[in-house]
Amino acid sequence: MSKKVAIIMGSDSDFPVVAPAIKKLKAFGVECDVRVMSAHRTPELAAEFSKNAKKEGFSVIIAAAGKAAHLGGVLAAHTTLPVIGIPVKSSTLDGLDALLATVQMPSGIPVATVAIDGAENAAILAIQMLALSDDCLASKLETMKEDMEKGVMKKNEALQAKVAEL
Amino acid sequence: MSKKVAIIMGSDSDFPVVAPAIKKLKAFGVECDVRVMSAHRTPELAAEFSKNAKKEGFSVIIAAAGKAAHLGGVLAAHTTLPVIGIPVKSSTLDGLDALLATVQMPSGIPVATVAIDGAENAAILAIQMLALSDDCLASKLETMKEDMEKGVMKKNEALQAKVAEL
Amino acid sequence: MSKKVAIIMGSDSDFPVVAPAIKKLKAFGVECDVRVMSAHRTPELAAEFSKNAKKEGFSVIIAAAGKAAHLGGVLAAHTTLPVIGIPVKSSTLDGLDALLATVQMPSGIPVATVAIDGAENAAILAIQMLALSDDCLASKLETMKEDMEKGVMKKNEALQAKVAEL
Amino acid sequence: MSKKVAIIMGSDSDFPVVAPAIKKLKAFGVECDVRVMSAHRTPELAAEFSKNAKKEGFSVIIAAAGKAAHLGGVLAAHTTLPVIGIPVKSSTLDGLDALLATVQMPSGIPVATVAIDGAENAAILAIQMLALSDDCLASKLETMKEDMEKGVMKKNEALQAKVAEL
Amino acid sequence: MSKKVAIIMGSDSDFPVVAPAIKKLKAFGVECDVRVMSAHRTPELAAEFSKNAKKEGFSVIIAAAGKAAHLGGVLAAHTTLPVIGIPVKSSTLDGLDALLATVQMPSGIPVATVAIDGAENAAILAIQMLALSDDCLASKLETMKEDMEKGVMKKNEALQAKVAEL
Amino acid sequence: MSKKVAIIMGSDSDFPVVAPAIKKLKAFGVECDVRVMSAHRTPELAAEFSKNAKKEGFSVIIAAAGKAAHLGGVLAAHTTLPVIGIPVKSSTLDGLDALLATVQMPSGIPVATVAIDGAENAAILAIQMLALSDDCLASKLETMKEDMEKGVMKKNEALQAKVAEL
Amino acid sequence: MSKKVAIIMGSDSDFPVVAPAIKKLKAFGVECDVRVMSAHRTPELAAEFSKNAKKEGFSVIIAAAGKAAHLGGVLAAHTTLPVIGIPVKSSTLDGLDALLATVQMPSGIPVATVAIDGAENAAILAIQMLALSDDCLASKLETMKEDMEKGVMKKNEALQAKVAEL
Amino acid sequence: MSKKVAIIMGSDSDFPVVAPAIKKLKAFGVECDVRVMSAHRTPELAAEFSKNAKKEGFSVIIAAAGKAAHLGGVLAAHTTLPVIGIPVKSSTLDGLDALLATVQMPSGIPVATVAIDGAENAAILAIQMLALSDDCLASKLETMKEDMEKGVMKKNEALQAKVAEL
Repeated sequence: MSKKVAIIMGSDSDFPVVAPAIKKLKAFGVECDVRVMSAHRTPELAAEFSKNAKKEGFSVIIAAAGKAAHLGGVLAAHTTLPVIGIPVKSSTLDGLDALLATVQMPSGIPVATVAIDGAENAAILAIQMLALSDDCLASKLETMKEDMEKGVMKKNEALQAKVAEL
Repeated sequence: MSKKVAIIMGSDSDFPVVAPAIKKLKAFGVECDVRVMSAHRTPELAAEFSKNAKKEGFSVIIAAAGKAAHLGGVLAAHTTLPVIGIPVKSSTLDGLDALLATVQMPSGIPVATVAIDGAENAAILAIQMLALSDDCLASKLETMKEDMEKGVMKKNEALQAKVAEL
Repeated sequence: MSKKVAIIMGSDSDFPVVAPAIKKLKAFGVECDVRVMSAHRTPELAAEFSKNAKKEGFSVIIAAAGKAAHLGGVLAAHTTLPVIGIPVKSSTLDGLDALLATVQMPSGIPVATVAIDGAENAAILAIQMLALSDDCLASKLETMKEDMEKGVMKKNEALQAKVAEL
Repeated sequence: MSKKVAIIMGSDSDFPVVAPAIKKLKAFGVECDVRVMSAHRTPELAAEFSKNAKKEGFSVIIAAAGKAAHLGGVLAAHTTLPVIGIPVKSSTLDGLDALLATVQMPSGIPVATVAIDGAENAAILAIQMLALSDDCLASKLETMKEDMEKGVMKKNEALQAKVAEL
Repeated sequence: MSKKVAIIMGSDSDFPVVAPAIKKLKAFGVECDVRVMSAHRTPELAAEFSKNAKKEGFSVIIAAAGKAAHLGGVLAAHTTLPVIGIPVKSSTLDGLDALLATVQMPSGIPVATVAIDGAENAAILAIQMLALSDDCLASKLETMKEDMEKGVMKKNEALQAKVAEL
Repeated sequence: MSKKVAIIMGSDSDFPVVAPAIKKLKAFGVECDVRVMSAHRTPELAAEFSKNAKKEGFSVIIAAAGKAAHLGGVLAAHTTLPVIGIPVKSSTLDGLDALLATVQMPSGIPVATVAIDGAENAAILAIQMLALSDDCLASKLETMKEDMEKGVMKKNEALQAKVAEL
Repeated sequence: MSKKVAIIMGSDSDFPVVAPAIKKLKAFGVECDVRVMSAHRTPELAAEFSKNAKKEGFSVIIAAAGKAAHLGGVLAAHTTLPVIGIPVKSSTLDGLDALLATVQMPSGIPVATVAIDGAENAAILAIQMLALSDDCLASKLETMKEDMEKGVMKKNEALQAKVAEL
Repeated sequence: MSKKVAIIMGSDSDFPVVAPAIKKLKAFGVECDVRVMSAHRTPELAAEFSKNAKKEGFSVIIAAAGKAAHLGGVLAAHTTLPVIGIPVKSSTLDGLDALLATVQMPSGIPVATVAIDGAENAAILAIQMLALSDDCLASKLETMKEDMEKGVMKKNEALQAKVAEL
């Protein structure tokens, strides 16, 4: 199994939302390929990419899109690789439209949906999938979990000063 | 310009919701072709159909789908014909998911959305488009409008008896 | 068939939202007439306009309104021309009120609804309707679709630099 | 000031929802005129009715409609009489569409909105308005309030037996 | 019948939202009494005020409150005068909480609800009620309606310059 | 501290929803007094009850109401005892109105809100409050927690047969 | 019974939201212990804390968290002490996600939920629980209630000047 | 890598919703272990299970829960295995509460969320993850995809008869 992850965003304006996913994958040493590709403006490109993704060595596809966010579903329709959807909040409805359009997939074609604008978790989820057959990644995930725990504890200590000031 | 309308539904279980659209088109003498085709289960079929729809003599495409209703958007992505979307209510969220997934399309690829389960209006909207260059259809629309008006008036009369009984 | 489109907005404060529709129609060489007209403050004007729209050479009516957005429905009630509704986001409820008030029309009187603040798509939808009997417009739509595709591809290339910087 | 109230419903299928309003007005001895009239199917009738309502002796207009419920707003647009709106729950969205389409009126044209399917309260509100210059009605309202209070107390007593059985 | 209107707000922070109602009433020459009074922080004051409102010469009560907006309901519970509710948008949920808490009143105790932050309409609604037995106010309402119409027309003219510039 | 709990419901039709709370309190041997009392139909009764609740030996008040559910807030306004609110689902909006009207209380007057129709939890919460100074109740709560755990384990065992049958 | 309250927040970024609760408890002379502890990042710490909270002298636990706000539920799962949940508004969905994730607890494990960002009320609710067996706190609550009432009255007086200026 | 999947449901009443996931895994020859385990009623069991899941040979955990659905999050908090969440619709709010409580996870702890009641997709997603390092499963997924496509085509043919009958 390759360890390459594709990150597809529906518009280049989604880049700031998606960036944490790219950083996280890089931090774990997972190769990723980032592309702008639209379910609606470049449907054939998207279909073509998805159909060939496995052959081209991708293991997981992450799709970020806003509004009537079809990107995850369209990519999932053309592949049997796991597809992770990031609903992106846009200027109206506070992300609810993208969430529902991403998560409410019909039977047969799942999109593994994370929180609105939850790019970092999309990356972690992809890494968890890859880690199923990669002990090195699995061990890095364990370390990350421990670091998170320590991070919370440090913040707890730092908080006590602020509390005392009230 | 041909007068043929395509009605595509995402699942055959949508048939009872879509039926009023078919009946309305038949009543106006507009030829229609009805098909089950899924944005997710038969994505290539859907893309293929949409790309060729104009060549095959279709003027308008009506798409009915529930949940993360991508069908309208997927068809619209492959054609420059007008696409009308019918959001279909399913077992959860009362149709809100299908409505948002159908109507909140990004710039460049509109889907003309009607009410949740609003199949009859999808047909009328298609007829209105065709009537732009078909005086006979335009005149039938005028008649329909007058009949609706008379229908309401008759119902108003019939209501008076019920009111008196209260 | 004439090629004239009416753009009606419920308040002059909607102008910035509606402007992209005007620009798009101009870019396609489609004549448009833009007016402020309120379903509630100038109901007779609106009714009068709609009743005569066809006679005065309009083919399609675009209506933009916020809150309890009745404008599309009121115009549709007086004409058999296709009416396109743009729900406009206002200071509360993030556009959900305008969306539901525009799209949930009763049987018999459709309003072809686009996304909240989706003025550009309203214009494209109008052009798609006109293109049904106008090969020149149809061909311009094809070009627009190709340009969109190329635009996404260029943005994809531009993105790679940003990704490398992360 | 006359004491006549108009009850307009958008469809005769709204009759069961509206009936409690009619009964309540009858119980208070307030004359009411009940009509089916649609903002969309009979827009001119509705406009005509509303424009003449004051002249024809109506004091208050009650409008009941579902989905993109424009009826209250359309009637309010043509009169300076107070208009009371009853949002009617229909088969999708649990009445939220009708509520927002009725209550979110723009400045200048209020619709006094009651609860979804809240016909009885629409009638009471109309009576409260009439009672402003009718001491007899005002006194009947006081009695109704007292009766409600007594009704709750009786139900409280009846409840104790059920509680004991648990 | 007196012509005095009470405007009650749940918190003095609601003043900017409520101010347009006060201005409108003043513009119509209707006396109004404005008070801060909370359904929860000063419940007895509110109950006392409402119980005596009629005796003290008030005809209509306007209540503005946010969040779990009980003020309208609490005032309505103690009087048979018509109570108008203005749901006020606060820092979360975009006003939906205040709208539902104001409008969804149980049978027997209506609150005439206007749009979220719709203070001007609350005032107009109050004036419409008073105008039922006051020809002078009724005639001012007619003038306001005509002025609104003219206002829209002027804005329409002004808009044409902006459109030309696009 | 007394151990008496008051359960107030806004309408006797709420009894089936509230019954599990009564049963739970009885099972814990906590005395409870159950009454129908409406924030809107018997506001003075409710205010009177709440003002005297502490004096009459109540420790906690549970309030169940639907729609614009003001009951919890109204009772909380007149007492410093903890008030627990049960939002009751009614015929429209699936309980969202009651939830928001109960939980979104302004600063100074909390209502401890449980899930929509969550009567059993309201009782347990009341018992947890009483248990703060009652070791016997505290120990019964521990037992209940253990029983719940065992109950889940038993259901887990029973489930295996069903799974095997699939 | 001890009088110690634990305030747990899911992230140190919640501190500004939670601060009013800390201040209120301090103002009432109630000892409180404030900690950052995450249901997801430090689950064992949270479980451990909750299991021992009673033994360590806590009476009430206040939990503040945003998004899929599990903190209240997780703490409640491990203790029989009353747990108060503060849903915290985050960058999407306006706090609705945190509200539903906090309040919709299953039978057996209540979380006493206050308004979105309603930290002050969480503190007051905790004090009300402690006051059940602490007359001094009870009397301070009475004073607070009276002060709130006076505060509203003062604001009412101050408001009159602003009203006069309109 | 093992191929064992755990399916955890929060209550045995979720079994009918979850059953399609079990069937699908069996159909693919993937071993699965099904358990009732509650985030709130058996929190230690859930934590214990999750902490040991990897050691005990599980690769993926599927969690199904309703209302304030914390189960997925709680399991994810104790493992680095991928966790898939199925939000289960319960008696109020149409599944929206479970969806938001499952999907809106904070950074660091993803839950791969599928549609409300979308158990079959949860199973397919798990299989897709396992298939990343199992060519046999991957090939079965391809077959399933082809079968779905053929299934839609057959339904399309069957539909034509119904259409002809209208």
